Amino acid sequence: MARLFFMNDYNCGCAPEILARLTKENLTPHVGYGSDEITKEAAQKILDAAGVPEGGVYFAAGGTQANSIVISHFLKTYQGVICAQTGHINCHEAGAIEAMGHKVLTLPEKDKVSAAALETYLKAFYEDESYTAMVQPGMVYISHPTEYGSLYTLSEVEAIRAVCNTYGLPLYIDGARLGYALAAKENELTLQDLARLSDAFYIGGTKVGALLGEAIVFPKGMDKLFPTHAKRQGAMLAKGFVPAIQFSELFTDHLYERLGRHGIDMAMELKKGLLEKGYALHIDSYTNQQFVILPEKVVQALRENVDFEVWERKDEDTLVVRFVTSWSTKKEDVEKLLSLL
Amino acid sequence: MARLFFMNDYNCGCAPEILARLTKENLTPHVGYGSDEITKEAAQKILDAAGVPEGGVYFAAGGTQANSIVISHFLKTYQGVICAQTGHINCHEAGAIEAMGHKVLTLPEKDKVSAAALETYLKAFYEDESYTAMVQPGMVYISHPTEYGSLYTLSEVEAIRAVCNTYGLPLYIDGARLGYALAAKENELTLQDLARLSDAFYIGGTKVGALLGEAIVFPKGMDKLFPTHAKRQGAMLAKGFVPAIQFSELFTDHLYERLGRHGIDMAMELKKGLLEKGYALHIDSYTNQQFVILPEKVVQALRENVDFEVWERKDEDTLVVRFVTSWSTKKEDVEKLLSLL
Amino acid sequence: MARLFFMNDYNCGCAPEILARLTKENLTPHVGYGSDEITKEAAQKILDAAGVPEGGVYFAAGGTQANSIVISHFLKTYQGVICAQTGHINCHEAGAIEAMGHKVLTLPEKDKVSAAALETYLKAFYEDESYTAMVQPGMVYISHPTEYGSLYTLSEVEAIRAVCNTYGLPLYIDGARLGYALAAKENELTLQDLARLSDAFYIGGTKVGALLGEAIVFPKGMDKLFPTHAKRQGAMLAKGFVPAIQFSELFTDHLYERLGRHGIDMAMELKKGLLEKGYALHIDSYTNQQFVILPEKVVQALRENVDFEVWERKDEDTLVVRFVTSWSTKKEDVEKLLSLL
Amino acid sequence: MARLFFMNDYNCGCAPEILARLTKENLTPHVGYGSDEITKEAAQKILDAAGVPEGGVYFAAGGTQANSIVISHFLKTYQGVICAQTGHINCHEAGAIEAMGHKVLTLPEKDKVSAAALETYLKAFYEDESYTAMVQPGMVYISHPTEYGSLYTLSEVEAIRAVCNTYGLPLYIDGARLGYALAAKENELTLQDLARLSDAFYIGGTKVGALLGEAIVFPKGMDKLFPTHAKRQGAMLAKGFVPAIQFSELFTDHLYERLGRHGIDMAMELKKGLLEKGYALHIDSYTNQQFVILPEKVVQALRENVDFEVWERKDEDTLVVRFVTSWSTKKEDVEKLLSLL
Repeated sequence: MARLFFMNDYNCGCAPEILARLTKENLTPHVGYGSDEITKEAAQKILDAAGVPEGGVYFAAGGTQANSIVISHFLKTYQGVICAQTGHINCHEAGAIEAMGHKVLTLPEKDKVSAAALETYLKAFYEDESYTAMVQPGMVYISHPTEYGSLYTLSEVEAIRAVCNTYGLPLYIDGARLGYALAAKENELTLQDLARLSDAFYIGGTKVGALLGEAIVFPKGMDKLFPTHAKRQGAMLAKGFVPAIQFSELFTDHLYERLGRHGIDMAMELKKGLLEKGYALHIDSYTNQQFVILPEKVVQALRENVDFEVWERKDEDTLVVRFVTSWSTKKEDVEKLLSLL
Repeated sequence: MARLFFMNDYNCGCAPEILARLTKENLTPHVGYGSDEITKEAAQKILDAAGVPEGGVYFAAGGTQANSIVISHFLKTYQGVICAQTGHINCHEAGAIEAMGHKVLTLPEKDKVSAAALETYLKAFYEDESYTAMVQPGMVYISHPTEYGSLYTLSEVEAIRAVCNTYGLPLYIDGARLGYALAAKENELTLQDLARLSDAFYIGGTKVGALLGEAIVFPKGMDKLFPTHAKRQGAMLAKGFVPAIQFSELFTDHLYERLGRHGIDMAMELKKGLLEKGYALHIDSYTNQQFVILPEKVVQALRENVDFEVWERKDEDTLVVRFVTSWSTKKEDVEKLLSLL
Repeated sequence: MARLFFMNDYNCGCAPEILARLTKENLTPHVGYGSDEITKEAAQKILDAAGVPEGGVYFAAGGTQANSIVISHFLKTYQGVICAQTGHINCHEAGAIEAMGHKVLTLPEKDKVSAAALETYLKAFYEDESYTAMVQPGMVYISHPTEYGSLYTLSEVEAIRAVCNTYGLPLYIDGARLGYALAAKENELTLQDLARLSDAFYIGGTKVGALLGEAIVFPKGMDKLFPTHAKRQGAMLAKGFVPAIQFSELFTDHLYERLGRHGIDMAMELKKGLLEKGYALHIDSYTNQQFVILPEKVVQALRENVDFEVWERKDEDTLVVRFVTSWSTKKEDVEKLLSLL
Repeated sequence: MARLFFMNDYNCGCAPEILARLTKENLTPHVGYGSDEITKEAAQKILDAAGVPEGGVYFAAGGTQANSIVISHFLKTYQGVICAQTGHINCHEAGAIEAMGHKVLTLPEKDKVSAAALETYLKAFYEDESYTAMVQPGMVYISHPTEYGSLYTLSEVEAIRAVCNTYGLPLYIDGARLGYALAAKENELTLQDLARLSDAFYIGGTKVGALLGEAIVFPKGMDKLFPTHAKRQGAMLAKGFVPAIQFSELFTDHLYERLGRHGIDMAMELKKGLLEKGYALHIDSYTNQQFVILPEKVVQALRENVDFEVWERKDEDTLVVRFVTSWSTKKEDVEKLLSLL
C-alpha cells in the first residue's frame, strides 16, 4: 500500500487545470517583472471577484514573503504589528518581520484575535506615560482561517475593523489557506467582505492548487512603487507571468472555489469518520486542518502507512494529531485512513 | 506575422523536458520546505557536476533573492560587498543588499572586475588611516557572464581569487546566465572551476530553461541554518520540490548544457548575420546578449515586428540595440529578424 | 519648599569629582574617536578592576545604544536574544533590537531569568521539529539589578551560565544601574564575577554619577572592528574622551563604589522609614528603587511637593509607588519625603 | 615646547561659558528623555534664531547619529539619499545609512552638489525604463560647509531647492561645522536661509564649542514620534538636558556665532601667514579647514611639534596638508605654527 499523505496542504504540484494552462502558454513570450498582459488580466479577475475593481494586486512567491513585504510597506520605522501570540508571523517565519526592522506585538490570544483584547492592548498602550519609549502599534494582522483552522465571523472582523478605525490602524488578513475558509459551510466572510474590511489581504495559492504564488490584494489601490519595495526584498519574479497564469486560471470558472471545496469535503468526510469511530476532536475545526485526540498506540501504528503531524501531547496515553486535507486529497485516501483507525 | 521576441531570456515558461517532469510528478506528494528527496537528489547531481560532492545547495526563487541571501549570510554587520560599478547588485536590484544593512562598494570597472583594480582598492582601504570609520570590504561579487555578456578567463578569476586570499575575502559568483557562459566556445571556466575558486556561486535557472529557480552552491558546505537565514528573508518555498524537480531535470542528460548551447547557437547565428549585413557590434559578446549599432531609422522600423531593448544612444543617428536569445529562441525567428535588418 | 525629586536616577549632571576632572582637562587637546590616551587609561582601569586586564572596553553614550550594539554584534542574522518578558530590551527601548533585525525572545519570567526557565525554553526549541522555521536563540540577556531592582545571586548567574555553555550561547549582562547593585549589602556578584561569567556586560555611568556614558566590557577581548560596528549604528562619539574622562574618574579612588553606596544608603534610609511608618513594600528591593504601597490619598497629597512615579494600581484605594534614589540624593530630602508620608 | 594641535576641531572639551552653565546647573534635577524645561527653552531659542518658531528641534549626540536618524526618517523603504561622492554619509560613517536599509546614491561631484548634476541624475533616472528596479531618489543631502570647507552660495542652494521641488524631494543640510560657515566673511547663507530652504538641517555642537551634541531642526515641524524613531536607533539620551543646556548657552548672547568667528579668525590668520610665506593653497578655503601644499621635508620637520593631517600626496616632493582651527585654537599657537614653517 502506498503511503497516505495528510501532513500538509502543499505537498503536490498544481491543479490539473493550472498545469494545462501553464502547458498551453509555455512557449508564448511575455515581457518580464509583472508588466505582461496576463498579470494585468489575472489581477483584474481577482479585483472583480473581490468587488474592488480599482484596487491593486501583487503576486508574491510565498506566504512569509507576502507577509514581510506587506507589513514592512505599511509600518513606519517605529511601529510594530499586532497579532495573536500564535500568529504565523510571530512563530514560524524565522523572524522575517524583525528582519525588516519591526517588532511583532502579541496579544495573549491563543487563536483568534478579539476586538476586546485588541482594544485593551491599545488603550493600555496610550495610557502608559512612557509609551514614546515603546514600539507603537502600527497594524493589525489576523489570518483567516487561523493557524488552528478557526474561522472569524463577520461580526468579529467588523468589530476588529472598528477598533482599527478608532486607532487609525490598517488591518491585514493573511489568507494562506483562504480557499479552505471560503469553502467552509460555516464561513461568513466573502472575498468582498475581506476587501471591504481590510487594507490588504492575500489569497493563498501555494496551499490551494497553485505550484506557488500568493495574490496580495490592496482594496484601496497599490502604491505605484510597491513592486520596487518588493524587489528590494527579493520578492519580484522575473517571470511574473508564472504566478499570474496560475491565478488567472484559479479565477476562471470558480476553480479557486472548487479546489477549496474539495479540500473541505475531504476534511468533513474525515471528521465525520473520526467522530463515528468515537475519537474526540481537539478543536472543532470547520476547515481543512483536523485536530483529533488519538491513543499513542494508534498513532504509532498509523505511522507505518501515513504521513501526518503530531501536534502535541494531550496526556500520558494520548496525543493530538493533525490531519490536513487539500485540493489534491483523494477520497479513497480518506477512506483508507479511516480504515486504519 | 507574429511579433519576434529578442527582449530578454526569461520570456517563456520552461524547457519541454522540465514541463514533462513537472507533469509526471504533479500529483506525487512530497514533504515541504526542501526536506524532500528530490531536493536532496537535485542538490547531489549539481554538487557532483561541480566536483564538490560534500558541498551544499540551496534553491532560491530568483536572482535578486539569491544575491541578497548569500551576501547577507557572508558579511559581518560592518562589511560591504565589492563589485564593478555596473554590477547587477549595484544597479538593478532596488537596493536589496542595502535592505539587509550592507553597502555595495564599487570599483570603477565598467564591466569585468580586474584583480588589479580590486587590489588597488583594498590596498588603499587599509592604508587610509581612518579606515575604521569606513565600511570594510567583506566579500567580492562578480558575475559570469557579466551584465554585458562578457566572460572572465580562467586566469582572471584565479587572479581575483588570489587577491581575495590575501585579504581573507570570500568570492561570490552570480551565474544568472551561467548556462550561456558554459556553452560559449570562448568560455574557459567550468562548473568545477567555479566551485574551486568561489565560496559560493549560483546556477541560474530562470534564464536557462526553468520556470523559476536558482541553485546556490556552497562548495565548502552550507551552514546548517542557512535555510533559516533564507526563510527570514522570505526566500524559502513551501514547495521546495518545485525548483528541485526542475534542477534535477536540468542536471539530467546534460539538459542545462544543451539549453545553454541552443541559446548560444542562436546568438552566434544572429551575430554572424549582423556582421554579414555590415553592422558594427558595440561589444564583441560571446554569449546570448548581442549589442549592435543600428541606424535609428532601422530601429524604428524594427519596432513594428520585434520586441527588443534600445541599450543607449550611440550618436545622433545611431543607437545601440540589445538582442537577447535563449533556450527558447527559434532558429526561424533569428532568420526572420535578420531578414528585417 | 523646593520640590523633592525621587522620579529617577538620571536627573542631575555628574558627580562633583567628575565635573572637576572635566573642568581640569577641558582645554587639553585629545585625538578623536576613542584613540586618545585617556580612553586607553580608563579602559585599563576598568579591566583591571574587573580582573580581565586583557579584555576590551567600548564607551557608549547610553543604555539602549549599548544594548543594541552589543546584541547585534553577537547575533547571527537568524538569531534572537532571550530575556525576561519584563526585560528592558523587550519593553522600553522602542524596538532597538528589532531595528537591527533581531527578534527578542521572551521567557515568561516577570523579573529575574531563571536557569530552569531558560533550559525549558531551549530544550523545547530544539525538540520542535519545525525549529528551522523559527528564530534561533543566540544570546541570553539579563540585567543586574533588574528592572525591579532585584539582584541575582552568584549561584543563579552560575546556573544561567551553565545552561548557556550547554547551548553555546553568549551571556550579556545589562548593568545600567550596576553601581547600585555592587553597593547593596545583599549583593553577591562582584565586577570580577560579571567578567568571569559573561561574554559582555556594561557598567552604567548615566545613572551612577556620569553626565552620560556606559562602559561596555568584553572580558575575552573585543573585536578589533567593534568600533566600526558601533559607528555604523551612530554609536561613536567624536570626543571619545568625554565618557572616558568620566570613567577614568569613576574608577579612581573607588568613586563608582562610593556613588553607588550613597544611592543605596539613601534607599535603605527611605525603606527603613517607610516600614517604620507602617507602609507595606510591593517588592523587597535591596537597591536604589523602592516600590511601596500607598493609599491613593497619600499619593495625591504627595504630588504637591514630590516628583515620583506611580508604578501601578494595587487595588481600589492603594497604588504602588516607585521612589528612586541615586548618587545625588540628599539625606535631608529623604527625611523631608518621610516627613510628608 | 608643548605640541601644537591643528588636527581637528573636536579635540577640547567645551567653551568656558558652557562649562560654567553645566557647572551651575549640575545638581538641579530635571526630568528625563528631553521632556524637561531646558530642552524646550533651548529648542525655542534655536527656532527663533532660525525664524521658524513653530518648527521642531531634536538633540542628537553626534553627527553620524543625526544623519542616520534624519535620513531614515524621511525615506520610504525603497528610497535612497543623493549626495556628492565625497559626502560624509558616503565615505566616513561606516555604512550608517545602509545599516538602516537605504542606499547612498552618489553624484560624480567631488565637493559641492550642483543643481545641474542633480537634475541630470534625476532626469536620467526617470527616463530609464527599468527605474522601478532601481533605488528611487528620496532625499538630497548636502553639507555646509562641505567636507573640504567649501561654502554654498545662496543661489546655489536655491537652485538645488528648485530641483528638489520639481521632483518632490526633501533637502537635508548637514551642519556639523555650521558655526564656521556662518562666521565666514564669504558666507551668504543665514540660519534663516537654511530653515527656509531645507526640510531638515542640523547645527553642529560637537565641533563648535559643545562637549557633544547636535541640534536637528525641522523647520516645518517635527513628527510627534520622531523621538521614538530616534530611540529605536539608540539616539535618545536619558539626560536630554545635557545637550540642551549646552545649546541653550550656545544660543545665548550669540555664543555660537562668537565661537565660530574665533575659529574663522584663527584660520584666516593662518591662511594669511601661509600665503605670505609663499606656500600655495590646495583649495582656497574660507572656513576653518585650510589645505596647503608643503614640501615633504617641511612636513617631516613639522611633525615633531605639531599634530595635523596629511591629506594626500601632491607630487613627488610635496604633500597636501590640512590644518584645522576651532573655537579653542589659541592665537599664539597659530603664530608658533607659522614660525615653524
